[in-house]
Amino acid sequence: MRMYDLIEKKKRGGVLNRQEIHEMVSGYVAGEIPDYQMSAMMMAVWFQGMNRQETADLTMEMACSGDTADLSSIEGIKVDKHSTGGVGDKTTLIIGPLVASLGVKMAKMSGRGLGHTGGTLDKLESIPGLTTVIPGDRFCRIVNEVGIAVIGQSGNMVPADKKLYALRDVTATVDSLPLIASSIMSKKLAAGSDAIVLDVKTGSGAFMKTLEDSVALAREMVAIGNGAGKKCCALITDMDVPLGNAIGNAMEVEEAVQTLRGQGPADLTEICLQLAANLLFLAGKGTIEQCGSMAEQAMREGRGVRVLADMVKAQGGDESCIYDTGKLARAPFRREVLAPSDGFIIHIDTEGCGIASAMLGAGRTKKEDSIDYGAGIFLHKKYGDAVRAGDVLAEFFASDERLFDQAEKRFLQSYVIGGLPSKARKLVYARVTEEGAVYF
Amino acid sequence: MRMYDLIEKKKRGGVLNRQEIHEMVSGYVAGEIPDYQMSAMMMAVWFQGMNRQETADLTMEMACSGDTADLSSIEGIKVDKHSTGGVGDKTTLIIGPLVASLGVKMAKMSGRGLGHTGGTLDKLESIPGLTTVIPGDRFCRIVNEVGIAVIGQSGNMVPADKKLYALRDVTATVDSLPLIASSIMSKKLAAGSDAIVLDVKTGSGAFMKTLEDSVALAREMVAIGNGAGKKCCALITDMDVPLGNAIGNAMEVEEAVQTLRGQGPADLTEICLQLAANLLFLAGKGTIEQCGSMAEQAMREGRGVRVLADMVKAQGGDESCIYDTGKLARAPFRREVLAPSDGFIIHIDTEGCGIASAMLGAGRTKKEDSIDYGAGIFLHKKYGDAVRAGDVLAEFFASDERLFDQAEKRFLQSYVIGGLPSKARKLVYARVTEEGAVYF
Repeated sequence: MRMYDLIEKKKRGGVLNRQEIHEMVSGYVAGEIPDYQMSAMMMAVWFQGMNRQETADLTMEMACSGDTADLSSIEGIKVDKHSTGGVGDKTTLIIGPLVASLGVKMAKMSGRGLGHTGGTLDKLESIPGLTTVIPGDRFCRIVNEVGIAVIGQSGNMVPADKKLYALRDVTATVDSLPLIASSIMSKKLAAGSDAIVLDVKTGSGAFMKTLEDSVALAREMVAIGNGAGKKCCALITDMDVPLGNAIGNAMEVEEAVQTLRGQGPADLTEICLQLAANLLFLAGKGTIEQCGSMAEQAMREGRGVRVLADMVKAQGGDESCIYDTGKLARAPFRREVLAPSDGFIIHIDTEGCGIASAMLGAGRTKKEDSIDYGAGIFLHKKYGDAVRAGDVLAEFFASDERLFDQAEKRFLQSYVIGGLPSKARKLVYARVTEEGAVYF
Repeated sequence: MRMYDLIEKKKRGGVLNRQEIHEMVSGYVAGEIPDYQMSAMMMAVWFQGMNRQETADLTMEMACSGDTADLSSIEGIKVDKHSTGGVGDKTTLIIGPLVASLGVKMAKMSGRGLGHTGGTLDKLESIPGLTTVIPGDRFCRIVNEVGIAVIGQSGNMVPADKKLYALRDVTATVDSLPLIASSIMSKKLAAGSDAIVLDVKTGSGAFMKTLEDSVALAREMVAIGNGAGKKCCALITDMDVPLGNAIGNAMEVEEAVQTLRGQGPADLTEICLQLAANLLFLAGKGTIEQCGSMAEQAMREGRGVRVLADMVKAQGGDESCIYDTGKLARAPFRREVLAPSDGFIIHIDTEGCGIASAMLGAGRTKKEDSIDYGAGIFLHKKYGDAVRAGDVLAEFFASDERLFDQAEKRFLQSYVIGGLPSKARKLVYARVTEEGAVYF
């Protein structure tokens, strides 16, 4: 009846201690605690919350529930970055090579796309020959030599989070701040880096709908990271529009390379520079302003392109695709999606764009689905732009023309064209550290 | 994802409609909705509650989830009584024959004892030959001829409640007012009687610890009963002391017969008369005062003894045991439990007495355990009595002398002897009808 007592305690607003959380997590992973007790507990947590110590304890117990990465053979400070999920978010492919070109190493474990969000592994695998399944010792060697490598999570890392997240996903207990924070941070801690920059999305397309909630989540995660001996900070970034213009795997690699050359879209460039500046700062490269200037200069000089190409080569891929992005996959059929009326783009539903791109073949509905690396969407008009009826809003690429109609319908539902221009949006709302939040 | 949506709705404080509750209950019984989703829902209900309509809908859906009793062949109004569980509670064996002797029929489905509480079926089965497994048509025939019959619930009545209760029992979601009310009332509705008197226990040994909570539960249940077209009222009765002096199956039958002869303990007699008066009132036999007088007179005249004997005979039992209770089972070994000190009995832990009785063989720890019908406890001193060290507090009966020591230890922990007399306790605190609660 031990788990019963813990559920009862949390239900009454009690605080679980480290030993209790340990028994709960290890018992659940071992299959001794059944799903129906854990889901009752998760719902009790949804209502009663967890204090910072409980959240930190849960994070540590999950982080230690399986294998953890051993990065000890990598010299110097290893940085990591986490984004709470997005559409068109290719920042890892940009800031990783950028900071590596400035001597800061990134040993990155990434995920795959599902539903409307893309995944870094899928984007990288659109490069012919590239593999993201690499043994730990070779992974560390590549990071030492190139400065960055990106692989998938190994088989048995944070099994507690995998099992718990799958349960929360079907029991309406995902949207709990301590559970989101512990889920994210358990993976970051298991991944073994020394410094972590968190990119916490805010807005209609994100977990956290309000700036206040996003800052609260960021503070919780930064506190957990610091408590575990990591350097940690967070940026609160906009999630009301897709990031950059390309949505789709090979198309996003191309846009990442352009951005690394200093020729990327303004929004993507701006966010990447700020994330890179914070990574460099945590790695001790200077003040946040100095680090910002370093990142800008490296981008102007296109220094990250070479690093990305070296990484692609080290991971078995064709690095010539980086120098000549025309060699990347591109689906054969193209359709222009036209503006149905005059006006200003006053809202873009990010999720809808992601779904439309997945409908073209660029994403997965189920884990087992295969991906068409060359498919996707290139946005020509974004938030705030003036349009006339018949202007090209976006280009679609697909390997089957029959996919266009449905995807176009879904896409056009995502674009709201109004009569008056909207005010400019911020890209980064705040920077959150142990000391608190600084709003921009 | 339908059940997911319902969990989310309840979590946010929404109201589930009848169709949604129907799909939830039928899907759960059919095994289409997994335990882990239902336990999350139950926890959401624990926090957000259910309004009266939701509770009534849940009750009806559970009542209809399996077989229901068909009492249509029984002439006249059929009454039923429910108690929320107790120690030494043999009221069914008394009030059933009592009201039957006054022309009001009771077609009763009862349960078995588990843990510290006894069950009416076990008590009846202590009578040699008596069976509580009787087909529906014969059950109705006995009720028509004798005025009362008592059987066990048939195989597939209210399967939704059985499954749901088992889940709540291991997920800390039992103590929710709408869930308790719907669980009890679904069984009463499926049992098919026209009028129901609810005996809601209050106090340390009961589900509901405070009078306020007990009245709230009673009001909810009365409203459900009335909404389903049943006549319904409730008495809030004391659960801080065992009812009567006998705890143990054959011993309780003997005490029931004494009470039917008008020679029972004062507390048991008083509660039975009040319950019987309410049953007669709901059956339309007069005002509550008139019904009280009728019940008293019938008890003075011992009219229920004959009815009980006829019922025992009709159910295959040896009715001579009722006329001569000395023929009932009695365990061979006897021990007197003595007061350890002088003073007044200021508290009796009801649950502790029930456990001590079960330790003597009179009860079950697990469903599969067998019962020693002749074992039990006879209380000589009860709440408020003055005692001197060495006075006999109780007599124990068992078939194995080795059981005495442990049971005595547990029993003595349940008796608190203090230096000053405590104030008298009420037996019945309130009567609850559709209109509200009247406190005594």
